[in-house]
Amino acid sequence: MKGLGVGVWTFGMGSERYVSDGYKPYLNLFERIEKIATLSGVDGVEITFPNDVNIENSGKFRTLLDQHNLTLCGMGVELVCDKEWQSGSFTSPDPQRRAKAISLTHSAMDLAAEFGLSNISLWLGQDGFDYTFQNDYAAAWNNLVEGIREAAKHRPDVSLGLEYKTSEPQMACYINSGGKALALAQATGQPNVGITLDVGHALNARENPAEIAAVLQAENRLFHIHLNDNYSWADDDMPVGSVHFMQYLELFYWLKKLNYSGWMSLDLYPYRDDPIEACKTSIHFVSKMQEIVDYPRFDHIIEDNRNKGSRSIRAVYELVFGE
Amino acid sequence: MKGLGVGVWTFGMGSERYVSDGYKPYLNLFERIEKIATLSGVDGVEITFPNDVNIENSGKFRTLLDQHNLTLCGMGVELVCDKEWQSGSFTSPDPQRRAKAISLTHSAMDLAAEFGLSNISLWLGQDGFDYTFQNDYAAAWNNLVEGIREAAKHRPDVSLGLEYKTSEPQMACYINSGGKALALAQATGQPNVGITLDVGHALNARENPAEIAAVLQAENRLFHIHLNDNYSWADDDMPVGSVHFMQYLELFYWLKKLNYSGWMSLDLYPYRDDPIEACKTSIHFVSKMQEIVDYPRFDHIIEDNRNKGSRSIRAVYELVFGE
Amino acid sequence: MKGLGVGVWTFGMGSERYVSDGYKPYLNLFERIEKIATLSGVDGVEITFPNDVNIENSGKFRTLLDQHNLTLCGMGVELVCDKEWQSGSFTSPDPQRRAKAISLTHSAMDLAAEFGLSNISLWLGQDGFDYTFQNDYAAAWNNLVEGIREAAKHRPDVSLGLEYKTSEPQMACYINSGGKALALAQATGQPNVGITLDVGHALNARENPAEIAAVLQAENRLFHIHLNDNYSWADDDMPVGSVHFMQYLELFYWLKKLNYSGWMSLDLYPYRDDPIEACKTSIHFVSKMQEIVDYPRFDHIIEDNRNKGSRSIRAVYELVFGE
Amino acid sequence: MKGLGVGVWTFGMGSERYVSDGYKPYLNLFERIEKIATLSGVDGVEITFPNDVNIENSGKFRTLLDQHNLTLCGMGVELVCDKEWQSGSFTSPDPQRRAKAISLTHSAMDLAAEFGLSNISLWLGQDGFDYTFQNDYAAAWNNLVEGIREAAKHRPDVSLGLEYKTSEPQMACYINSGGKALALAQATGQPNVGITLDVGHALNARENPAEIAAVLQAENRLFHIHLNDNYSWADDDMPVGSVHFMQYLELFYWLKKLNYSGWMSLDLYPYRDDPIEACKTSIHFVSKMQEIVDYPRFDHIIEDNRNKGSRSIRAVYELVFGE
Repeated sequence: MKGLGVGVWTFGMGSERYVSDGYKPYLNLFERIEKIATLSGVDGVEITFPNDVNIENSGKFRTLLDQHNLTLCGMGVELVCDKEWQSGSFTSPDPQRRAKAISLTHSAMDLAAEFGLSNISLWLGQDGFDYTFQNDYAAAWNNLVEGIREAAKHRPDVSLGLEYKTSEPQMACYINSGGKALALAQATGQPNVGITLDVGHALNARENPAEIAAVLQAENRLFHIHLNDNYSWADDDMPVGSVHFMQYLELFYWLKKLNYSGWMSLDLYPYRDDPIEACKTSIHFVSKMQEIVDYPRFDHIIEDNRNKGSRSIRAVYELVFGE
Repeated sequence: MKGLGVGVWTFGMGSERYVSDGYKPYLNLFERIEKIATLSGVDGVEITFPNDVNIENSGKFRTLLDQHNLTLCGMGVELVCDKEWQSGSFTSPDPQRRAKAISLTHSAMDLAAEFGLSNISLWLGQDGFDYTFQNDYAAAWNNLVEGIREAAKHRPDVSLGLEYKTSEPQMACYINSGGKALALAQATGQPNVGITLDVGHALNARENPAEIAAVLQAENRLFHIHLNDNYSWADDDMPVGSVHFMQYLELFYWLKKLNYSGWMSLDLYPYRDDPIEACKTSIHFVSKMQEIVDYPRFDHIIEDNRNKGSRSIRAVYELVFGE
Repeated sequence: MKGLGVGVWTFGMGSERYVSDGYKPYLNLFERIEKIATLSGVDGVEITFPNDVNIENSGKFRTLLDQHNLTLCGMGVELVCDKEWQSGSFTSPDPQRRAKAISLTHSAMDLAAEFGLSNISLWLGQDGFDYTFQNDYAAAWNNLVEGIREAAKHRPDVSLGLEYKTSEPQMACYINSGGKALALAQATGQPNVGITLDVGHALNARENPAEIAAVLQAENRLFHIHLNDNYSWADDDMPVGSVHFMQYLELFYWLKKLNYSGWMSLDLYPYRDDPIEACKTSIHFVSKMQEIVDYPRFDHIIEDNRNKGSRSIRAVYELVFGE
Repeated sequence: MKGLGVGVWTFGMGSERYVSDGYKPYLNLFERIEKIATLSGVDGVEITFPNDVNIENSGKFRTLLDQHNLTLCGMGVELVCDKEWQSGSFTSPDPQRRAKAISLTHSAMDLAAEFGLSNISLWLGQDGFDYTFQNDYAAAWNNLVEGIREAAKHRPDVSLGLEYKTSEPQMACYINSGGKALALAQATGQPNVGITLDVGHALNARENPAEIAAVLQAENRLFHIHLNDNYSWADDDMPVGSVHFMQYLELFYWLKKLNYSGWMSLDLYPYRDDPIEACKTSIHFVSKMQEIVDYPRFDHIIEDNRNKGSRSIRAVYELVFGE
């Protein structure tokens, strides 16, 4: 992999439905980057376009990154976090809105290219529905296929990673699993459409992160990864390793084995936690997991334990904790 | 039952984590009540103390209610929606904070009594934890039992309804099921501690609403009910009947059979929906369900279909849709 | 649609992990068909190959079907319910086992063709894993793509419907969502690979049945449908409509709108229920839902309520229960 | 704690709904004990009454235990795994069946006393319902309270542990959470009614095992523990630690801190896995977790990290993997 980044939203106020003004003071983009720059083991910064970085402030942003020896490692097109998108972006019944979604994506691709970033993310959290009998599903799928295709055709040197999620903010999202995202990418017929795998979203979709990562990588469509953890039911965005030790270890094992060459970003939302602590906890965990998958005996762990049932689990724990 | 109310938060901005300033303009308490007053079939208003109604504005509030022939039908003590409570209320490690929670509850009970309201609700959404190894669970339980007991002893003419919920805002809440709430109520030894049953929360806890309602009523601890619906996994707070037709019909059947004599309030959170529509949809559904459970043939539906497997389901649909 | 069928397994003993010899006496295939023949409103019978019907008994089977004016409406290739498949079928590490899976599929296609059945189902419940670090996910995906492709190439006049399911019997199955099944079908490059949509499996995968059906139909890959209901968390295989009234109504609405032309089979597993009751309850419900979606005012229900939030839910209930 | 046991059902055939004759050959009770006796680190055996051990074979059973230096560490009353119980045991509408459940419990208590076993388990998996409108919930609760009370009064020297579970075999079980089990125990008014905590069942009920264990222990009602792991959604009964490392570590931490003095049994169901492997994997994990919670620095881990958010998670990983 290229390195480890941090999403700047991790340093937000922690707003939610109940405490809408959040648990922490507001920091602007540049203050957030100063914070991230203090974290040892972080190589990159992920932002959203155009809310965080845009034509106006991209120069100042670049200067700050250079100053701290940080790289722009990820960029999401903001198509969710404003009520203007409440009826959808790429699937809005309003053609002007769909056009705006495509146009914003094109601009984001251009900005990414300027920064040498080879892919951006599309998380379409407002493209879905709250209630049954509310939307035309066939038209929505058609709009997704055509809209994403048109967005992708803008320039082949920047790829689009579809970040799937079962729900939120809409009660049900169209791109709700790794399989659905893959099917959509394939349906566009464009090689530069793939997936941004958010590990927490995969767990919510009842997927095993390592398994879906391996499939996406086998199909040459795994472009970017968001790291966070949860208690399986909802998108808690907790520090990496808070809950799923074995599944994270297996994910890192497969990313190494399949030569994943993209970035990984911490995508955390530490409501009542200090973002610095949440990042440090995650960085420590990721670094330990990478040490473990580099153990020589780890190389053949699957082959060695093939057809031996839970022997594979014990083999891992023996390597980690001793026999 | 006494009647149907509406929680004033239903007419809020619809703030959430992604669209923190919500999807709709802000309405003050009095504007919200004006809106509620336009709804046919609504008898009551539910508020939180002291945020919505308090010593200062209670006179004006009462006047407005009288004007519209509305009753105060529910009151929640606000112990969640401000960052001051982020380490808990009744279970905070800080004794001053625990004392404040008890004191606020006492004040709410007094205000309720002034309005002739026989019970208030305690939803302790910040009493829980985000991470493992974070809290002292035994101390927390002890604080719950003692704190709720002390709160309840203030006056026997106002009861406390514990509103359980599996999670949110804390990733895991202590009072996380109808059974846990009942056990806690029993442990206080106070007859005026019981439960506010939020139907959506029951579904999230993998409970059948009618079953837990019957148990709580059998134990004389079902004081108040919040109505809303969801897709089972999270607290979507959608209009009543959006998803669970059969389970809602069964709930109303059991509330009638067991002579539930409290209020029911619409507890909705229509992010992208017009609150008036969300209420109207709910009121229409509730009214139709109540018509159905009043069919004479419905009286013996369980006895008639006992030990006949899914015959019970067909019997319901035959009554509703014809044979 | 072509008509409504019943899976013969619905009339099995109801075996499960706890009561391994089931709740009911064993009936052989022909006794099961006699039972199904008594059900008014049923046009077809679904079986598994080669366990239920095979070269040896296909003549007798055809005679019995003709006698009762029933059609063979579905056929599953049995690749799960014997311990020989415990390490997988199409993804077994053993090439002979993979070859056997393909060969059995070819034979099933031939038998289907003899009966004029245009598609068969592949439910690969043993192709998955119990534990992390147990399987080679990349190899498994590759085997799926190549194996299904090879199976499909046998004859273009019979299609293969991949029946996805999140888990069971393996703790995690590879083909675990409608999206994953669609992506796999696309990856084979064969037009006669599509999906058998089991509505209960869709609910377990947190999908909305109508939505995924519309997407699959839009991609010309929706070949067959299994009907049953559950409480969302597990594959309860209860009578249709036991839980999800609105979502089933919406599914039938979309199947009509998109001119779904395949069969639907009752895929029930009434452990402690009489299968005749479970079928009758389901048939009554399906028939009522089809009446409702044929109401003239139902035709434009989505267009009429577009951008009106939960107005769509109320519109449905008003049509069904009156205003 | 007293020691670690193994449930003899772990060495069963692995029957399930799909492979009803299981994945492995049948072993009788004595063969199973011989297998268990080969496991290093196991002190006890758990059985069900009267299916495994009863008046007839208890002498032979005792001899075999003595021979292998094993203790009878747990006993479940078999009220589920035969179709005779399909309409319930303690809540059956048939008074004779309820009487039989109580009488069997009394006999089990007597046998337990003979073996010096201080508690037995009641898992009432058939006391629940499949469908709405099927059962009288108020009567069922009443029968539970009265029946369990009557069972418990038989002799104060043997306690009853209610083993709660959300579902299975019935689609919904009455005793479905740790809170509900505690409330029921309290409602009986008997000090010798408490809980058998099955960790997997707790996870299915969206509980945190350490938290519910601490509450039950604080109420002096935690009598026995079943160990196994799952992917959160269903009762997979996989080896301990297969999935939930942090939550298991926290559980062992709290059991030590609160001086839990009962037994823990492996309650596994290794369908496609060798039971010996499944036990060895579990025993290794349990032993490592107990080593970790004995680290001196672990003693004050909660106090040291109080109010520091995810610092607690990092503290654990630093102790385990180094800084």
